[in-house]
Amino acid sequence: MDSYDRSNDTVFVLGADGYLGWPMALRLSALGYRVVAMDNLSKRAWRAEIGVDCLNPVASIKRRIECWLELTGKQIEWHQVDLANRAALNQLVASYHPGAVIHFAEQPSAPYSMVDSDHCVQTYVNNTVGTLNLLWALKRGAPDCHLIKLGSMGEYGCPNIDIEEGWLTIQHNGRSERVPFPKRPHSFYHLSKVADSENIMFACRVWNMRATDLNQGVVYGIDTEETRLHPDLATSFHYDSTFGTALNRFCVQAAAGSPLTVYGTGGQTRGYLNIQDTLACILLSLRHRPDPGEFRVFNQFTEQFSVNELAQTIGEARRECGLETSVVHIENPRIEAESHYYNAKHQALLDLGLEPHLLNQTLITSLIGWIAQYLDRVDLSALENPNVTWASGANRFWARQTAVDTLAAV
Amino acid sequence: MDSYDRSNDTVFVLGADGYLGWPMALRLSALGYRVVAMDNLSKRAWRAEIGVDCLNPVASIKRRIECWLELTGKQIEWHQVDLANRAALNQLVASYHPGAVIHFAEQPSAPYSMVDSDHCVQTYVNNTVGTLNLLWALKRGAPDCHLIKLGSMGEYGCPNIDIEEGWLTIQHNGRSERVPFPKRPHSFYHLSKVADSENIMFACRVWNMRATDLNQGVVYGIDTEETRLHPDLATSFHYDSTFGTALNRFCVQAAAGSPLTVYGTGGQTRGYLNIQDTLACILLSLRHRPDPGEFRVFNQFTEQFSVNELAQTIGEARRECGLETSVVHIENPRIEAESHYYNAKHQALLDLGLEPHLLNQTLITSLIGWIAQYLDRVDLSALENPNVTWASGANRFWARQTAVDTLAAV
Repeated sequence: MDSYDRSNDTVFVLGADGYLGWPMALRLSALGYRVVAMDNLSKRAWRAEIGVDCLNPVASIKRRIECWLELTGKQIEWHQVDLANRAALNQLVASYHPGAVIHFAEQPSAPYSMVDSDHCVQTYVNNTVGTLNLLWALKRGAPDCHLIKLGSMGEYGCPNIDIEEGWLTIQHNGRSERVPFPKRPHSFYHLSKVADSENIMFACRVWNMRATDLNQGVVYGIDTEETRLHPDLATSFHYDSTFGTALNRFCVQAAAGSPLTVYGTGGQTRGYLNIQDTLACILLSLRHRPDPGEFRVFNQFTEQFSVNELAQTIGEARRECGLETSVVHIENPRIEAESHYYNAKHQALLDLGLEPHLLNQTLITSLIGWIAQYLDRVDLSALENPNVTWASGANRFWARQTAVDTLAAV
Repeated sequence: MDSYDRSNDTVFVLGADGYLGWPMALRLSALGYRVVAMDNLSKRAWRAEIGVDCLNPVASIKRRIECWLELTGKQIEWHQVDLANRAALNQLVASYHPGAVIHFAEQPSAPYSMVDSDHCVQTYVNNTVGTLNLLWALKRGAPDCHLIKLGSMGEYGCPNIDIEEGWLTIQHNGRSERVPFPKRPHSFYHLSKVADSENIMFACRVWNMRATDLNQGVVYGIDTEETRLHPDLATSFHYDSTFGTALNRFCVQAAAGSPLTVYGTGGQTRGYLNIQDTLACILLSLRHRPDPGEFRVFNQFTEQFSVNELAQTIGEARRECGLETSVVHIENPRIEAESHYYNAKHQALLDLGLEPHLLNQTLITSLIGWIAQYLDRVDLSALENPNVTWASGANRFWARQTAVDTLAAV
């Protein structure tokens, strides 16, 4: 593993307008990296499509960058670009010659990928073709670049064995082999991420590229040291059943005095992490490069909880404040095990120095307090009734603007 | 496993204009199935792109179908359709309600997928999006249909352990799990097939669909009982370094009196099968349906050989005829192990009743004899110098019409 701390190096942040991409771009800029931020702004279009806004007002990417410049004198370079645009991507790689690329630029919602064939294919093509184009562009213009790709713990599914970090050594009929950890992903979104991982692994193997695949757990939290500096630097907070993550969603329900809606029996167990730890993990990855040809995988989360445990923790935090929270179990829109073995390893990033921010009642109380100021913006119907199911796709309440299965083929 | 022999059922053959799709359509029609043949004819366009024709003259799909009708009175129904066209696909599924779909409709060449980013993405999108659209169309219009998908043994790569048929039971830290067999595919083409397999496996799991994934070895041979009936029923025989398979290519070199060009040291070992056995395997799969929800995998080949063993067998067959064959080792255009463990299981289809046609000198001699009549059509340069390498993509001799990396983005 190369040690790496050339803080003046150029880093691409792809998907820099997103929930995690934006805080990452700020952190890197704060640390003195030359940050080239890119996004096709499709997340804003997808939000408009489903008709539910973020909880908080979010400034435009141009205003965000301007605000950061005003406050700190630091310039984040911005390009609106779609990774489908190979010519533009090749040119950007050739002109900046990045030392590292942090790739968040994917459609990030499992329910969105299950809406219908059109949304499934949109997700699959956006994610896999974007990543393929990136691999070819780096091979051509920056073959020594370190690709840091955001994957998902949901790629693994819920196997009945311990989940290792990307690789597994197995014995079979008296012989041994180190193999990619077998995966059984939860949705077409997760399948697109698995495909990305395999394509990147191949590029490392045949083109001697270096990559880190970060299989991330469910992220919670609202802000970081940099986003707190000004309202126009805030990151987007999603709470709806399509783009919101579980803990964020529960906290909005708690703030609104609504019951927490648990899917099915609630035994589904996943890895979780604080948004601040996301940034820390990526920085650790950036500063410790894999060797050329190495496809390195880290499981990026700090704790694992069942959905019931999450709901319980929130209930306890509210009780501390003298408030009661109720839980309702609703029909599970997903097809998944609701009671299963789950033990996922996450040692590698700790070994590199990660100091986790664990979930506690203080944090939950502060999160709910922050949410409370935006309660007038909450659309509770977007929380209560998941309107995309794994069995039947989207129902008629899902989106105002979607003509299911009638959009042009890709 | 459902037993299944309703010979009047409707079967879709997707990719019915191809090397294997066409003989399959004929065989099914001969057996009394209602055959609905579909193809987008892109293989003919790809051939035109690389500028090397098939060895033999091949009639148009319309003439083929007309000829079959004239000879047998049997009607193959034909639709020129691209699986990217969701609306057309949905309509075809709804109107025919197929009992089975045999899916050959993929870009089938590893070198083609390594030409450049454009050909890589073309391959990936054609194959994965076609299969995704098919899954959604079947879910919607024919959820009980049996999807038979042609995969490749090259999806597995060359692991240091025995290759099982799709699934593997492993022990890890005292626990046990049946997992999809871990794969390390040889090219972006093979990666697209792996992605298909994963997407189909998911559809079986969450939508209760039934599918058979046939991980096929390298196919050789020129004809079947039906294609032999008339020259206009012949299937296409590819010998060039992009679309030709190893044994077919060697036989053309032997017929032309050219040295057999072995890539690298020639220890690369793969599974092989006769085109007649391809048809038999698919029929066995069709007649023994998997259960709803079952993702069944068969390894579809009958023998395994190293490239050197293949070349040697051809040399021996020629010697029987009093002819000498030479072998030259050329720089391997692929990045792959040239000496490795290889032991792939292929028991399941034998258990269903497959009676293999094994490779022997009589067959090779007859194959070379057939080839000899078309020697004036052979472009030897298409054999000698593979002009796509895994390290550098296509060289300038590859194609007349390709502007590398300048075509429109997908």
